Amino acid sequence: MNDASGTQRLALVSDCRRLNELSARTIVNAIRDRRLTAASVMEACLERIATREPQVKAWSFLDADVARERARLADECQAAGLPLGPLHGLPVGVKDVFDTSNMPSEYGSASLRGRRPTEDADAVSVLHQAGALIVGKTSTSEFGMYHPSPTHNPLDLSRSPGVSSAGSAAAVVDHMVPLALGTQHTASTTLPASFCGAFAFKPSFGFTSMRGSNVLVPRVAHIGLLARSVDDLTLFAGAFDRRLTEVEPLRHPPRLGFVRGPGWDRVSPDARQALDRLVAGLPVAVAAVDLPGEFDMALEVVLGLLNAHLANRFGALPENTFRSFCPPLQEGIVAGRALSAVRYLELEAMADRLGALAAALLSDHDALLTLSAPGEATRLEEGPGSGVMSMPWSLCGLPTVSLPLLRGINDMPIGVQLVGCQGGDHDLLRVAAWLTDAVTLNGKSFHEQV
Amino acid sequence: MNDASGTQRLALVSDCRRLNELSARTIVNAIRDRRLTAASVMEACLERIATREPQVKAWSFLDADVARERARLADECQAAGLPLGPLHGLPVGVKDVFDTSNMPSEYGSASLRGRRPTEDADAVSVLHQAGALIVGKTSTSEFGMYHPSPTHNPLDLSRSPGVSSAGSAAAVVDHMVPLALGTQHTASTTLPASFCGAFAFKPSFGFTSMRGSNVLVPRVAHIGLLARSVDDLTLFAGAFDRRLTEVEPLRHPPRLGFVRGPGWDRVSPDARQALDRLVAGLPVAVAAVDLPGEFDMALEVVLGLLNAHLANRFGALPENTFRSFCPPLQEGIVAGRALSAVRYLELEAMADRLGALAAALLSDHDALLTLSAPGEATRLEEGPGSGVMSMPWSLCGLPTVSLPLLRGINDMPIGVQLVGCQGGDHDLLRVAAWLTDAVTLNGKSFHEQV
Repeated sequence: MNDASGTQRLALVSDCRRLNELSARTIVNAIRDRRLTAASVMEACLERIATREPQVKAWSFLDADVARERARLADECQAAGLPLGPLHGLPVGVKDVFDTSNMPSEYGSASLRGRRPTEDADAVSVLHQAGALIVGKTSTSEFGMYHPSPTHNPLDLSRSPGVSSAGSAAAVVDHMVPLALGTQHTASTTLPASFCGAFAFKPSFGFTSMRGSNVLVPRVAHIGLLARSVDDLTLFAGAFDRRLTEVEPLRHPPRLGFVRGPGWDRVSPDARQALDRLVAGLPVAVAAVDLPGEFDMALEVVLGLLNAHLANRFGALPENTFRSFCPPLQEGIVAGRALSAVRYLELEAMADRLGALAAALLSDHDALLTLSAPGEATRLEEGPGSGVMSMPWSLCGLPTVSLPLLRGINDMPIGVQLVGCQGGDHDLLRVAAWLTDAVTLNGKSFHEQV
Repeated sequence: MNDASGTQRLALVSDCRRLNELSARTIVNAIRDRRLTAASVMEACLERIATREPQVKAWSFLDADVARERARLADECQAAGLPLGPLHGLPVGVKDVFDTSNMPSEYGSASLRGRRPTEDADAVSVLHQAGALIVGKTSTSEFGMYHPSPTHNPLDLSRSPGVSSAGSAAAVVDHMVPLALGTQHTASTTLPASFCGAFAFKPSFGFTSMRGSNVLVPRVAHIGLLARSVDDLTLFAGAFDRRLTEVEPLRHPPRLGFVRGPGWDRVSPDARQALDRLVAGLPVAVAAVDLPGEFDMALEVVLGLLNAHLANRFGALPENTFRSFCPPLQEGIVAGRALSAVRYLELEAMADRLGALAAALLSDHDALLTLSAPGEATRLEEGPGSGVMSMPWSLCGLPTVSLPLLRGINDMPIGVQLVGCQGGDHDLLRVAAWLTDAVTLNGKSFHEQV
């Protein structure tokens, strides 16, 4: 879908400053065919970062010399005839909640300043083995909690990029790197994607190992993938699961269900109208789906589980360290200490129950359609927005995509969220490609409209 | 291994009273070959039960007429040419912690008197589909807790059969049925097997669905299989996992590690001596394996997890019901109510840690060898004995077998326990067959010696 425009842009290869804007698929294909070098692509990305980073603040660590050297080596390996991974030579950003053995891994926390783990996180190893070049670590909220990081929204620097994979979303949207890795327990990939206008994919629970990352609550710990198109999300996902490398077009229009979800009263009027217009313009009927009342408890369940795990993990730290934590982390620890084991097990049972209810909802639909966020990116002084739109689906471990197909009253993007069934990652990406094509048939995606 | 003796006994087929003593393998083969009818085998089992049940008290529910009718139908189905399952026509006992749609399912508790679930437990469905004939429900401690059930040890009626799958172990050893289903969270299959002289197999965690059974703590809920030989355990296990139907002989002697385990100071001198003699007489060297000190916490971890789940499950019941529970259940609920969520998560983390340590121990051995119980069956007035010997392996989800290869000072059996690696069920059964053959080459198994 983006290959056509990518190929056109390749005609401009002599204009090196534009290589950073190519799609990931175009770049890996061009490197493989020796029409581009990894070094030239990396140089274009580093130039973009050098220009924009002082305003955007997407990175918590970056060593341009090391990145250049890695790109040079990638080209040498290719010249020597070594086998190439599916992301060979591609610059990638990694949220700083993943351990990297050659870069600081501080999880956004002053308490881990200078931490250098000896091993890579499993997800980082996957990227290395796929041939990706990790440019640096992207900014995150402290321990991926609900608290602003230093990053600004690249589309409007006075606005929030969301939390907590803000650096990864901003870096991708601002053409600093074509792909970036995030995480999500409740909304950490979907919310920044919606605010910044990125395409995002949060796979099913259990999609890939979370070892070596900042796992807050094991049962809701997911990776999140950020890119600038569904096709690039697919390429990215294929590095983790080869079955996803290419997405076959749907043979028939998808059965979509429109679901409001808890917290719908917070949705802004412009977001509602934009979504209504999108749904009305689709070539298929979209049935309204009522979410069972139990979902009203989803937020309480997630927060309870989170607080218990925070208290378990951080409760025994020295008072100084505790005081250094961001307010939501401190508050979570205090609340978690007061929870009983019985309450914890009740929360787990409620989470299981919601999972079963969600699975039943999905049995009649190829995907549920809803918003990724209650509206456009908030202004920085208003805080980082609400994650309520994606939280229930994360709790249930269902795969979701966020597509920047809507536009709010201030001309900022708003994501459309699609929710698939557990394990139905490939089918969800097919629906996402279908929906993006259907909405942009008349013209362009959000970024092309800008 | 037992087929030879089984075939010899078949020569005595006219002596119907002995059919109940045949091995399960011999019975299913003979029924399949039309040398025996399911009805005649059932009749022999029912006769044995009628004779012995007043003393042994192995059954909490039994309807002889229904059992006879089922056996007759099994023969009719065979005559009609219907496909036969691997346990076709075989009488089987089921511990009354499994739901059965056609029999009461009271979990050994007065609080569930007369309970008739509408659905079979998944494990019960497996047995039905395999063609087994469920004769009745075997006695259990209340909710499978650590408390005596009415059953007596069939080898010495003044002694305990152990807890909590006591009815299943007693029924098998007393030739009432060739196979019986139990469960195990800590010791509930291994301890009764050791006390009564049964062969037992507790598969790896996750071996089969526990839905519809009395799950106290999901992460340590296992089925337990009881039989009178390793070969019959294998046949039984094969009904749940077809890969286990036949056990190939080992190609080389197994690498065995001798491990003492927590609570070894409770082991009686005669049990120690018997085990030492067995090990000394083996045709392979058995290396001593030191258990890491962390295993001293295993009992605390198991009890903590158990109490939390008991409080979660039973904590909101009316005071009358609570007061009707056996003392360990009441005490567990009270202790569980006082546990914090943080402590619960610590216990889970310790359980994970022990699992990792145990996996490391197993990496150098085909199986670990230890005792199944600290000694012979206790006298009834001394209580149901200690489950400390099998508890750590249950906590780690490792497969175990108990083999009645030792004899104590009072001529009662003591089990040898073998522990395999997670998922290594087939290999563990191969080692069990090898060990049983090695020990009984010079003569007979425990029962043949009696």
